[in-house]
Amino acid sequence: MRKFDLLTPADAVAKLNAALDAAGGHAPTETIPTTQAHNRVLARDVISPVHMPEFRRSTVDGYAVKAATTPGVLRVAGEVRMGELATTGLRPGEAVLVHTGGNLPAGADAVIMIEQTSPLDTATTKIQTAAKLTAGENVIQEGEDVRKGDAVVRAGARLREQEIGGLLSLGFTQVEVARKPRVALIASGDELVPAEAQTRPGQVRNINAPMLAALVERNGGEPLDFGILPDVRLAFEEAAQRAMHEADMVIFMAGSSVGERDFVPDVVNAMGRPGILAHGILFRPGKPTLFAACNGKPVFGLPGNPISALITGTLFAMPALWRVQGAHTPPPLNMIRATLTQDVKSPRDLEHWFPVHLPLPNGERVGVRGEGEGMPLAGPIPTKSNLIFGLVRAAGMACAPIGVDKLAAGDEVTVRLFD
Amino acid sequence: MRKFDLLTPADAVAKLNAALDAAGGHAPTETIPTTQAHNRVLARDVISPVHMPEFRRSTVDGYAVKAATTPGVLRVAGEVRMGELATTGLRPGEAVLVHTGGNLPAGADAVIMIEQTSPLDTATTKIQTAAKLTAGENVIQEGEDVRKGDAVVRAGARLREQEIGGLLSLGFTQVEVARKPRVALIASGDELVPAEAQTRPGQVRNINAPMLAALVERNGGEPLDFGILPDVRLAFEEAAQRAMHEADMVIFMAGSSVGERDFVPDVVNAMGRPGILAHGILFRPGKPTLFAACNGKPVFGLPGNPISALITGTLFAMPALWRVQGAHTPPPLNMIRATLTQDVKSPRDLEHWFPVHLPLPNGERVGVRGEGEGMPLAGPIPTKSNLIFGLVRAAGMACAPIGVDKLAAGDEVTVRLFD
Repeated sequence: MRKFDLLTPADAVAKLNAALDAAGGHAPTETIPTTQAHNRVLARDVISPVHMPEFRRSTVDGYAVKAATTPGVLRVAGEVRMGELATTGLRPGEAVLVHTGGNLPAGADAVIMIEQTSPLDTATTKIQTAAKLTAGENVIQEGEDVRKGDAVVRAGARLREQEIGGLLSLGFTQVEVARKPRVALIASGDELVPAEAQTRPGQVRNINAPMLAALVERNGGEPLDFGILPDVRLAFEEAAQRAMHEADMVIFMAGSSVGERDFVPDVVNAMGRPGILAHGILFRPGKPTLFAACNGKPVFGLPGNPISALITGTLFAMPALWRVQGAHTPPPLNMIRATLTQDVKSPRDLEHWFPVHLPLPNGERVGVRGEGEGMPLAGPIPTKSNLIFGLVRAAGMACAPIGVDKLAAGDEVTVRLFD
Repeated sequence: MRKFDLLTPADAVAKLNAALDAAGGHAPTETIPTTQAHNRVLARDVISPVHMPEFRRSTVDGYAVKAATTPGVLRVAGEVRMGELATTGLRPGEAVLVHTGGNLPAGADAVIMIEQTSPLDTATTKIQTAAKLTAGENVIQEGEDVRKGDAVVRAGARLREQEIGGLLSLGFTQVEVARKPRVALIASGDELVPAEAQTRPGQVRNINAPMLAALVERNGGEPLDFGILPDVRLAFEEAAQRAMHEADMVIFMAGSSVGERDFVPDVVNAMGRPGILAHGILFRPGKPTLFAACNGKPVFGLPGNPISALITGTLFAMPALWRVQGAHTPPPLNMIRATLTQDVKSPRDLEHWFPVHLPLPNGERVGVRGEGEGMPLAGPIPTKSNLIFGLVRAAGMACAPIGVDKLAAGDEVTVRLFD
C-alpha cells in the first residue's frame, strides 16, 4: 500500500502462481482408503489393469439375439444369470434371457428389450420379437468404456463421488493422494479475545480464525490455530518462524495494512524468497490484502475485518490451497448472472464485491431455467459496518468490475453464490 | 413402472415433500461446539443478547472529529487504543486518533480518514483536515448491524462460515443443530461383490454404496452401510425392517424396477404409510427411480446402474436429506448456461440429463464474465455403457427438458456442474 503499486486481483494471483511454480516441489503424499478420499487430490495417474467392461454386456433387460433374426419368432433357450458368464452359445432361431449388465452369449450380437417382445405361450418358451434390431444394439462391447492401460483418473484430479466409484470399480481400494496441507492461521490485534471469552467494552471476539479454519477444512487443508498475537513485532516474528517450520501455507489475519501495528509486511519479507508479491490489490472489500510466496509456500495477509477476511480467503487463499495440493480441478465456484434490484455505487478503480440476497429455489430441486424465465433478482445488502451479519443475510456476492463506478437497478451482474 | 403412472420429476418431488410435511415431526437435535458446526442445520433461532456494535465505532483508520469543524486545523488530543473505550470526550477544535473498529469519543460524530489529513508538525500534535465531513461519516452507530433481541440466525439455516462467525461474535460457542440423519444404504444384486473383493467374470464391485456414502456425508447425513443383499425377498424384508428401526432415511440401490428380482416396490409398501408415491419418473438416467415416504421417513429406490444412482441420489435424495434436517437453505446447486458443441438426441417424453465436459477456468480464480465473453462450451460425453467413467470425464450434466427430442450444436443448455 505504501511501498507497492496496487495490482489487479488477476495480476496478484498470476504473480503468486508464477512464484509457486518457479519454486517447484511436489506436495507430500499419503495412501488412504479410497472410500475416505472424497475431495482429496490424486497424486499419480491410476491406470486401468483391465478392459471395462471385461466382456460384452447387455444395457437392458431383454433377450440376447442375433440381430438378423429379428423381427420374428424365437425359441427361448435359457437365461444368463447375473454374476455368471454365458456358458453356451446362441444357436440359430434362439434367444436367451439377459438382465441389464449381463453377459452376452457367443453368437448373439444384440439385445431386444423385454417390452418389445411378447411371449407366445404361458411358459415363455417362444417369443415374438416386434422390432428389427441392428447388430450391437443395446450391447456394450468389451473395453468400450475403458481400455486396459488407460489412465482412468489423472494425477491432480480432485476426487468426487464418481472418481471414488471409478477407482473402486477397478478394485483400487487404496489411493495415493496429496497429504492435507497444514495452514497456519495467525490472528492478531490487542482488541481480540478468543470466541469463548467474556468481552470487555472495546474487545472483539476472534471469529476470523474459526471461519478460515472451516474454509480450510472443506478445501482440503488442516488448519493450525496459532491463536491471537498481540500487536508486538516480536510476537509476529516468532509466529512467522514457527509457521514456516510447521505449516505448508500461512494466513495472517489483520496486520497487513500500513498502520503502526501492521507488522505483517516486514515479517513476511523475512520469511523466505521471493517474499511479498502484492501488497494491496485493486479489490474491495480487502484492498490491503497481501500476497507472498516464501520458499515455495503461499503466504497471505488478509484484512482483519471479517467480511474482507472471508471473501479474500475464499477467492484468493483457497485456490492457492488447492494449488499446494496439486489440484488441476478445484471445486468450481458457483457463479450466476442476476439482475440488480437497486443502484450500487462502486469505486471505479476497484473490483468491488458486495453481498446480495436473492430468492433461491427452496432447495427441493433447482428447476431447469428456460429461456423465458428471466434471471434471479439480486438485492444489495448494506454492510457499512463490515460486521459479519451482512454476510449472514446474503446468498452471495455480486461484482462491479474495475472501470464501473455505478451499477443501476436492472443491470445484469455476476453473483458468486456462497456454498 | 408397471402399476403406476410415471410422474414428472417435479411432481414426484412435490408428492414426497407433501407426504413428509403431512407426517410432521421434527428432526432430533444435539448441541455441539459452534466451531464444529459447519454445514449443520440450526435447530432454533439464535437471538442477539446485545446491540452490535455495542458502541459507536470507526469504520476507518483516522481521526474522530465533529463534522462541523471540518475542513480546518484540529488539535490531536490523544488516541483511542484498540480494545479500550474512549475515556474522555472531544472538545471543540480537537481530533482523536482512532483505528478501524475503535470507539468514538463522546462529542465526535464522524471520522476523517488518515489519508485525508496532513500533520502540521513532526509530532502530529496538529492536523489539517482536507475534506468536509458530514455527521455519521465513517461511523457505525450502536446497534446499527444487529439490535438486541433480533434473531440473527434462524432455525433452519445451514451454517456457513459467516453463520459460524456471526454466532461466535456474539459468544455463542455452542449451538443446537439437527442431529445427523442416519441414512440406510441398501445395495442388492447377486452379481455384486464388495469393492475390496476379487471379482470373478460376471461379478461387479459395489460402488454405489461408497459413492452414496460420500454424498450423504457431505450433505449432512451419517451413512449406514447395509452391505449387499442377495436377490431374495426375505433379505429385502429384513433389511427394510431394520432400516426403519435404525435409520431416518432409506436408500435402496437396484431392485426398484419391474423385473423378477425387483423386490423393492413390494417391500417399501410394507414399510409404512403412505408408502410409494412415485414408481418411475419421466427422467433419464433413472426412469425406474422410486419415491416413497414411510411413517415420515423418505425412502428411495434408486437404479442399480452407477450413473443413474449418482444422479438421482444427487438431485432427489439429497434434497430430501436436507429436508429431514429441517434446512431452509440447502447448498445451492451449481447451474450454468452453456453452448452445446454437438447434436444430442433426447427422448421427448423424458427430462434427460447427459454428462458434458467443459473447459472450466483452472481454478486459480473464476473471472468475472463480461457481457461479450460468451458462454462456455459443453461437449456431450457418450455413456452408452452406464459405467461410471462417463462421469469421471465430465464436469457436469446438461439437461434436455421434457418435450425436446433433439438439441442441436449451438443450442444453449443448462448444465449442473459437479462440485
